[in-house]
Amino acid sequence: MILVPWRPRRTGATVTPTPSPRVLPHPTREEIRLEAVLHALADPVRLLVVRRLAAAEAEVNCSSIELPVSKSTSTHHFRVLRESGVIRQCYQGTAKMTCLRLDDLDDLFPGLLPSVLTAADHQSARDAAR
Amino acid sequence: MILVPWRPRRTGATVTPTPSPRVLPHPTREEIRLEAVLHALADPVRLLVVRRLAAAEAEVNCSSIELPVSKSTSTHHFRVLRESGVIRQCYQGTAKMTCLRLDDLDDLFPGLLPSVLTAADHQSARDAAR
Repeated sequence: MILVPWRPRRTGATVTPTPSPRVLPHPTREEIRLEAVLHALADPVRLLVVRRLAAAEAEVNCSSIELPVSKSTSTHHFRVLRESGVIRQCYQGTAKMTCLRLDDLDDLFPGLLPSVLTAADHQSARDAAR
Repeated sequence: MILVPWRPRRTGATVTPTPSPRVLPHPTREEIRLEAVLHALADPVRLLVVRRLAAAEAEVNCSSIELPVSKSTSTHHFRVLRESGVIRQCYQGTAKMTCLRLDDLDDLFPGLLPSVLTAADHQSARDAAR
């Protein structure tokens, strides 16, 4: 006799084979790669999001971060940041909340995020002085 | 009488109107952008080049850096690094020499490159321990 794991019958109406879309996938700390983090930070809009979150020092509603792009582009940028391990996103009611994964990033790449934020500040100051 | 600078007559055979392809274009310090630097560093092969150059602490012949890619892909990666302002490249005879633009990067983004190099070292150590 061959034993196979029990699975509910697929009725279509009641079984949801995929996880709830309200739980967003994140890499574990061990899965975060430096190249993906740098790629996520290499875009001006995503860098803006990261600077806003660093300044907020708390969980923020994604929709409260004003960005110079469409809603769908904004969603894309948040997804790149989340999938690279730079931010954490979760639903609270209808609001999608987000924050930086400071502990994970500091443990994996000490000093990296602060140096990128400082570099971004320096660049903004230079741009403003022109 | 109007004085104009003397120029050799264009004979086609002896005049070269475009700059020599042996002088490679580089951004000035002021033209270097954080986003472009992060993008350049976000690729595993380019990050490997940067780590090799940092370890060498001197000008290096590009062809002496062994990379797990074809010659043309390697040339592409060196160009991305040069055009973003991460490295400087120049010809010495037939050799294409390269080095990190440490002074420019340190002036523009203090601590950024060291923190990326440290992060890459940490990641390599973790990968090796697996």
